[in-house]
Amino acid sequence: MGYPDTATGFMHVDAKNWTKFEKQEIEHRANFSVVKFPLKPFEDSDIDVAIDCCGVCGSDVHKISGGWGDHHIPLCVGHEIIGRAVKVGPSVSWCKVGDRVGVGAQIAADLTCKNCKAGEENYCPNGVDTYDSAYPDGTISQGGYSSHVRAHQQFVFPIPEKLSSEDAAPMMCAGLTVFSPLKRLGCGPGKHVAVVGIGGLGHYAVLFAAAMGAEVTAISHSPSKKDDAYKLGAKNFISQKDDPKWFEKYPFEFDYIINTAKAVDTFNLKMFLSTLKVMGKFHNVGMPEHALPELHFQDFAGNGSYIGTSHIGNRTEMLEMLQLAAEKGVKSWVQEVEISPEGCKEVVERVYNNENVRYRLCLTNYDKAFGKRY
Amino acid sequence: MGYPDTATGFMHVDAKNWTKFEKQEIEHRANFSVVKFPLKPFEDSDIDVAIDCCGVCGSDVHKISGGWGDHHIPLCVGHEIIGRAVKVGPSVSWCKVGDRVGVGAQIAADLTCKNCKAGEENYCPNGVDTYDSAYPDGTISQGGYSSHVRAHQQFVFPIPEKLSSEDAAPMMCAGLTVFSPLKRLGCGPGKHVAVVGIGGLGHYAVLFAAAMGAEVTAISHSPSKKDDAYKLGAKNFISQKDDPKWFEKYPFEFDYIINTAKAVDTFNLKMFLSTLKVMGKFHNVGMPEHALPELHFQDFAGNGSYIGTSHIGNRTEMLEMLQLAAEKGVKSWVQEVEISPEGCKEVVERVYNNENVRYRLCLTNYDKAFGKRY
Repeated sequence: MGYPDTATGFMHVDAKNWTKFEKQEIEHRANFSVVKFPLKPFEDSDIDVAIDCCGVCGSDVHKISGGWGDHHIPLCVGHEIIGRAVKVGPSVSWCKVGDRVGVGAQIAADLTCKNCKAGEENYCPNGVDTYDSAYPDGTISQGGYSSHVRAHQQFVFPIPEKLSSEDAAPMMCAGLTVFSPLKRLGCGPGKHVAVVGIGGLGHYAVLFAAAMGAEVTAISHSPSKKDDAYKLGAKNFISQKDDPKWFEKYPFEFDYIINTAKAVDTFNLKMFLSTLKVMGKFHNVGMPEHALPELHFQDFAGNGSYIGTSHIGNRTEMLEMLQLAAEKGVKSWVQEVEISPEGCKEVVERVYNNENVRYRLCLTNYDKAFGKRY
Repeated sequence: MGYPDTATGFMHVDAKNWTKFEKQEIEHRANFSVVKFPLKPFEDSDIDVAIDCCGVCGSDVHKISGGWGDHHIPLCVGHEIIGRAVKVGPSVSWCKVGDRVGVGAQIAADLTCKNCKAGEENYCPNGVDTYDSAYPDGTISQGGYSSHVRAHQQFVFPIPEKLSSEDAAPMMCAGLTVFSPLKRLGCGPGKHVAVVGIGGLGHYAVLFAAAMGAEVTAISHSPSKKDDAYKLGAKNFISQKDDPKWFEKYPFEFDYIINTAKAVDTFNLKMFLSTLKVMGKFHNVGMPEHALPELHFQDFAGNGSYIGTSHIGNRTEMLEMLQLAAEKGVKSWVQEVEISPEGCKEVVERVYNNENVRYRLCLTNYDKAFGKRY
């Protein structure tokens, strides 16, 4: 067979010892209770991808550490995938075997609901996440810390030549997650965007907002991020630690605040809202584990502001983001780690502890772990 | 003098016995501690208005009952004012003595800040509310349960002939408060708007959203509001009491929800959010006294929705609302009560208890209380 019926992955196998990863190779059998890691049956619109590298997302860590609650075990996480198409279904016209492609945090949708029809497949109520999500046939989706992934063509993306695989990988989730709201909120010349938290998501928010032509102000608790923020393209840097009353200097200033910081439950949100222009948006990305701090509608009344969030992005936005990155030379800040049980352990620990991650990790050297697959 | 240096009002005089109103007529003196109810000095852009009627707003009741905290006493509330211009400053070109005009919930702004320059004077950080708010000279603004009001021309509005004074009065605050967000959110043909709470604000939200061409679904806890909702222009009516799982039938349905219900702290907001289209808005109007219920950003993620609020509206919106009401025959549902200590007591009690208010009260017969003033 020129393509796999099963994939091999570095699997999360123990809820308590959640940094332990085991390499598992499992035959495809009909009994799901025996077969832990089957690929869903191949369909005409599917593409099989032999994976070359995979970014490490905060979601991977939230998931396996239990921060988001129960999940399937064993589980293969990873949804920032770049690889080569090794099998292409007959309904797929835009992709051929050998093409370099990417897969992000969503792998399927019903494609028939009104959201899908409106090009909002990322809000399909029957969407399937790239891992730990059930296909209609019961197969549990498995992610990119593995040899192969199978995806519907709607969720596979051509990667522009100018982008290296390691740079493109973390864009597939983190990049799109910030690009989509920036695009929808109208980011561009004349806009002033605040980015809160300079981490994996935040570094992309600064990079993309600047590439889109907006003025960017980076807001961080870590004065040490200042130089990086300027290098990423910010025009201004606010250290909340050094200047806790910073917001008094920025009334009605920002068109939108893109919050990428997890600790939003500890925020003085009223203070953040006061820095927004009339009808400005406090737009959260990422999925904090805790509730929002207490809010009154009065907190929004001074400028008629809003808070909200978004969920990854749609296909159009993914393609536009990749094109923008290629054209404007948007360069991810990526640290590479070789995939292996030790490498997987290392990356999830670094992300969990937020230590030595500037600003995105990418698992690489898949050929060494899984053999040459194309 | 052809105009007053002081006004006479039915004043709120006792924080504990907050439904007690006393008629007070006070000479203008320089000492603010003696003069309880002076009008601010007349300036070139000011207009003096002899008041004919004044709508009764929930704000009046929140204020004097202490729901919003401390306030000046004695105080004259009322900010849905219709009357005649009796003095017009030399800088005012659009209005002459004798013109019928209205004054809403805002009476001044600095007119120099970036919000004012952008036509967003309702978000001026130095705005002066029509009552219980300090002018730069220290005068405390006093509202429309009184003989006269003095206002900067920016906050005085010509009333179209086709609108009766009693119909126009409650539009000055309640009408504008819902019209402004409807306009800014793009209400019109092809949009589906949900209005939660069919009361003073809610009845205007249904009236105006329908007049703007949108499909309107009214959502109420009171099955008894059904007939009224249809008469107001709603296409659909949801009784939350009869159908507590109504939201399951409306996934991704509404472009926006205009919430006019005060008890938002008791809402299952996640349920409401689930009925919004992608990037839909849950827009609150009115200022509930309690905090929002607990929220997680996950609650917004299924459709990338937002929550927020607004603060009255700007001059352009007020003029457009009045024009629309005149052209489309938007008819307020108003119950009239004669102004007097007893009348003032009656209206604030009815609003406080939400009893027999369908859907807006208006104090009238000012000539009897204050004499003929023009």
